[in-house]
Amino acid sequence: MCRWLAYSGSPILLEELLYKPVHSLIDQSQHSRMGVETTNGDGFGIGWYGVDDSVALPDTRRSDVPVLFRGVGPAWGDLNLRELARSTSSGMFLAHIRASTGTPVQQTNCHPFRYDRWLWVHNGAIAEFGTLKRDLVLAVDPALYPAMAGSTDSEVMFFLALTFGLRDDPVAAVERMVGFVEAVARRHGVADPMQMTVASTDGERLWGFRYSTVGQSRTLYVSTALTALRELYPDNPVFAGLDDETRIVVSEPLGDLVGAWNPIPESSYGVVEAGDDTLGAFTPREP
Amino acid sequence: MCRWLAYSGSPILLEELLYKPVHSLIDQSQHSRMGVETTNGDGFGIGWYGVDDSVALPDTRRSDVPVLFRGVGPAWGDLNLRELARSTSSGMFLAHIRASTGTPVQQTNCHPFRYDRWLWVHNGAIAEFGTLKRDLVLAVDPALYPAMAGSTDSEVMFFLALTFGLRDDPVAAVERMVGFVEAVARRHGVADPMQMTVASTDGERLWGFRYSTVGQSRTLYVSTALTALRELYPDNPVFAGLDDETRIVVSEPLGDLVGAWNPIPESSYGVVEAGDDTLGAFTPREP
Amino acid sequence: MCRWLAYSGSPILLEELLYKPVHSLIDQSQHSRMGVETTNGDGFGIGWYGVDDSVALPDTRRSDVPVLFRGVGPAWGDLNLRELARSTSSGMFLAHIRASTGTPVQQTNCHPFRYDRWLWVHNGAIAEFGTLKRDLVLAVDPALYPAMAGSTDSEVMFFLALTFGLRDDPVAAVERMVGFVEAVARRHGVADPMQMTVASTDGERLWGFRYSTVGQSRTLYVSTALTALRELYPDNPVFAGLDDETRIVVSEPLGDLVGAWNPIPESSYGVVEAGDDTLGAFTPREP
Amino acid sequence: MCRWLAYSGSPILLEELLYKPVHSLIDQSQHSRMGVETTNGDGFGIGWYGVDDSVALPDTRRSDVPVLFRGVGPAWGDLNLRELARSTSSGMFLAHIRASTGTPVQQTNCHPFRYDRWLWVHNGAIAEFGTLKRDLVLAVDPALYPAMAGSTDSEVMFFLALTFGLRDDPVAAVERMVGFVEAVARRHGVADPMQMTVASTDGERLWGFRYSTVGQSRTLYVSTALTALRELYPDNPVFAGLDDETRIVVSEPLGDLVGAWNPIPESSYGVVEAGDDTLGAFTPREP
Repeated sequence: MCRWLAYSGSPILLEELLYKPVHSLIDQSQHSRMGVETTNGDGFGIGWYGVDDSVALPDTRRSDVPVLFRGVGPAWGDLNLRELARSTSSGMFLAHIRASTGTPVQQTNCHPFRYDRWLWVHNGAIAEFGTLKRDLVLAVDPALYPAMAGSTDSEVMFFLALTFGLRDDPVAAVERMVGFVEAVARRHGVADPMQMTVASTDGERLWGFRYSTVGQSRTLYVSTALTALRELYPDNPVFAGLDDETRIVVSEPLGDLVGAWNPIPESSYGVVEAGDDTLGAFTPREP
Repeated sequence: MCRWLAYSGSPILLEELLYKPVHSLIDQSQHSRMGVETTNGDGFGIGWYGVDDSVALPDTRRSDVPVLFRGVGPAWGDLNLRELARSTSSGMFLAHIRASTGTPVQQTNCHPFRYDRWLWVHNGAIAEFGTLKRDLVLAVDPALYPAMAGSTDSEVMFFLALTFGLRDDPVAAVERMVGFVEAVARRHGVADPMQMTVASTDGERLWGFRYSTVGQSRTLYVSTALTALRELYPDNPVFAGLDDETRIVVSEPLGDLVGAWNPIPESSYGVVEAGDDTLGAFTPREP
Repeated sequence: MCRWLAYSGSPILLEELLYKPVHSLIDQSQHSRMGVETTNGDGFGIGWYGVDDSVALPDTRRSDVPVLFRGVGPAWGDLNLRELARSTSSGMFLAHIRASTGTPVQQTNCHPFRYDRWLWVHNGAIAEFGTLKRDLVLAVDPALYPAMAGSTDSEVMFFLALTFGLRDDPVAAVERMVGFVEAVARRHGVADPMQMTVASTDGERLWGFRYSTVGQSRTLYVSTALTALRELYPDNPVFAGLDDETRIVVSEPLGDLVGAWNPIPESSYGVVEAGDDTLGAFTPREP
Repeated sequence: MCRWLAYSGSPILLEELLYKPVHSLIDQSQHSRMGVETTNGDGFGIGWYGVDDSVALPDTRRSDVPVLFRGVGPAWGDLNLRELARSTSSGMFLAHIRASTGTPVQQTNCHPFRYDRWLWVHNGAIAEFGTLKRDLVLAVDPALYPAMAGSTDSEVMFFLALTFGLRDDPVAAVERMVGFVEAVARRHGVADPMQMTVASTDGERLWGFRYSTVGQSRTLYVSTALTALRELYPDNPVFAGLDDETRIVVSEPLGDLVGAWNPIPESSYGVVEAGDDTLGAFTPREP
């Protein structure tokens, strides 16, 4: 399985979340506490939306397409990741460390996956993916098909979600994607096919999903609203500097601060956006 | 041998020089025209000084230490380099593509080399480096010794230059470094030991060096002053947007624009800095 | 494009062909003379059938499945390849150096591709593969589908050939594969879709194919029969030591020895096997 | 720290020890039970002496120099290692999985280290190696100096041992090496500098060492003599097929078979050779 982290809020250096916390994502790459494996050493990736640098030249403006940095070695020893994390700021990014469930360790299998403005990370697996893969891939919109570059279940899930409308109605699209995978699995006699926590974003809003067919999903947590945290810990300078709407969604908490992390309930989704966030029930439906 | 590029001027996206020119550094990685080898596929690196992002948090300010990104595969196929080049702006950076002369292809042998605020790239070689290496390494300041991480002649040259005063008087320090290498070579009966073009910077100023014991040095070019170029090409929007003091120093020109590139003379050095630049004779002297 | 080499004959160390000839495959990785690109630095691979070591233990016998060694860096600098080539003997092996035509540089895209006892290497490309890929992949036998691990046209060609009977009648299967690709291309309005030289083997026999829709195929050569070479060069010890039936098939000759290499004609195939070899016309036919 | 394995005995496929045991070396790369870290994912290596293949050509005989295969990724996911392990037989080999103590993850830092006919693997560390390194490296025989390619304490220990006579009297040479390191550490005020288990071999004999200045060394085990094991387990076919003199030395046992593994005592060395093996006290002495 894997571990991932999603951030939405005031621009911060990536290292603030990837390296500095006691149980940072890099620490989780060797010492995951809640994952299926303690080691997540089969590659990693970050995808981020740039902070406007107001650079001098008109033709060098940053595009809306998020930037990807993905490597096939363990995150804990990657010197380039260390350098980028100390020099890159972003107000919206996804990070992922991978523990392969069988598909090759290669850059095209590292999360986040990207399509246009969209990013996607996944922890979990589709059961007996080799058996189901052909039927799943055939359902991907032929116009999207050439953009699939790797061989993971996670990427196929992303492209099925795109096929089912991710860009228009993300929650409904992911519900249809899961409903479709479960229907294909039934046809092949594969029980309990879906196990997932997923984050996806278009750079403006952030969606998180926690679901498994069997009803025992991998863990997922969201940071408590900063206004609440500031009341609890009025002297903490990090909380003081961040925008009220800053949120972190993670496979497992980055530390042991009481009250800082809320588990996301079984079979639910959340949306982090300007104004109040949303939490709702996640109900797969066949498309 | 290798190819390198040094930029000092208005902040621009790295891709403007690494990818967009007709004969960009990435093009040179497969099709060098003036190098000893047409292929420079044994790793690459960029080192840059950040643009101030004015990020929100006080504890996330960028340091003065330049950022390094170095890879061991060919530059032409590196997807992470492509992503960074389209999203990273800098007003001072060094880039290098490597063709190994025998030392291993590994990240610690990729240029630029860094020490504190300083960066260093090199094209060329020390003749019979295996024979001379021990004597050269022993002359490195013991306080600097532990910071050497790789096994190239280029890195030893950098640390000898640091030992001989690079941070105080760069030109004199590099002259002493070369004088020392030539003296050690004489003791070992090695003829014509030094072949080099070098760039070094502290983030404020940029030094370029062209020298070889045999008096036939690898090529080195500097872009013509923009004021002159603007008069020649008044309609070129790239020239219009850049600061007057912008300069590019390269192993070989990035294109065929007449008047845009001046060869740096044999056995000389140049300094790119605020105000008038300097060009002088390079004279090795034994320390 | 790429370069490849196929060997069938007396067991020899791999280095005899990969490193020692004047214009060895490793030399071709930097200095191809007849390829579309001079550089073939986007990965490499060898697949070989073992020599029986008569090892002590019954349960450690070598299987019939050929051994693969594939790397993503340039072949010229790979130290493991150098070590294996000087210590591994085989009487049947394929070797390949890759110049990507767009698909990612990753181990699953490196040739040879393997299925059961079979190996496959390819030089060339399917035109507008992104457009045609989905239709081609859908035609692969669903039972074979899960064994495809990469994203190249070359691997899809292999699995189509397997689908069309490679293991029973290799020449007919490859003719059907090409006929099918050409038919799909016609439906999509893609002209001149196929450009290929291919080698395939089951460890007993070796097949070579040279074909392109446009009728101007990449070069392919086969070594002259050793009996003929021995008469021409009676004092050459290498020729003396090899079995009469030894043959080498290559994208371009390994040296300049007059009479040693015969071009394989346009639109033809050859079979290297015990007894007389076969050369025939290659005629794509729609399955 | 690291884990290693040394084998001397009847030629067997590498996979018999690297992959097949319950707690094989590959299993230890993710789930070490007795190491400082559970994960050993910072590269790996094997060095082996070839089985004579009696290949056809006189000029393709295998040399006495052992073959190296080393990779920088985690051993558990390396497909080339998996392929080689199922196809390569040897009667004398060393294997190592690395957990870096700070030096870079690169091929030249992967064990085994090789010089001429000799191999060397190490688990442990020299305390404050950065402080001591220069003095240690200066003591390496200048004729050997150019052969050092990496930056680890382990390689410097090997070259010091070579300097102090490893090829003539291995035990005395390693005792001098440790005595020298301890003397240099005293001069620098570094306490308890040496922590090591080491294996070294010339292809004929195998030496194992267990020592630490503090007297609490990393674990080291040797397999029980096969004659004893065969009496205990008369029906085990693996024991039946191996030569009486077969021995395995390991950082931690490959399984839980009672009586199969003997701990090597604190501060001692062992020699595996034809006839009776030797076990003796290890006593560092300053050269």
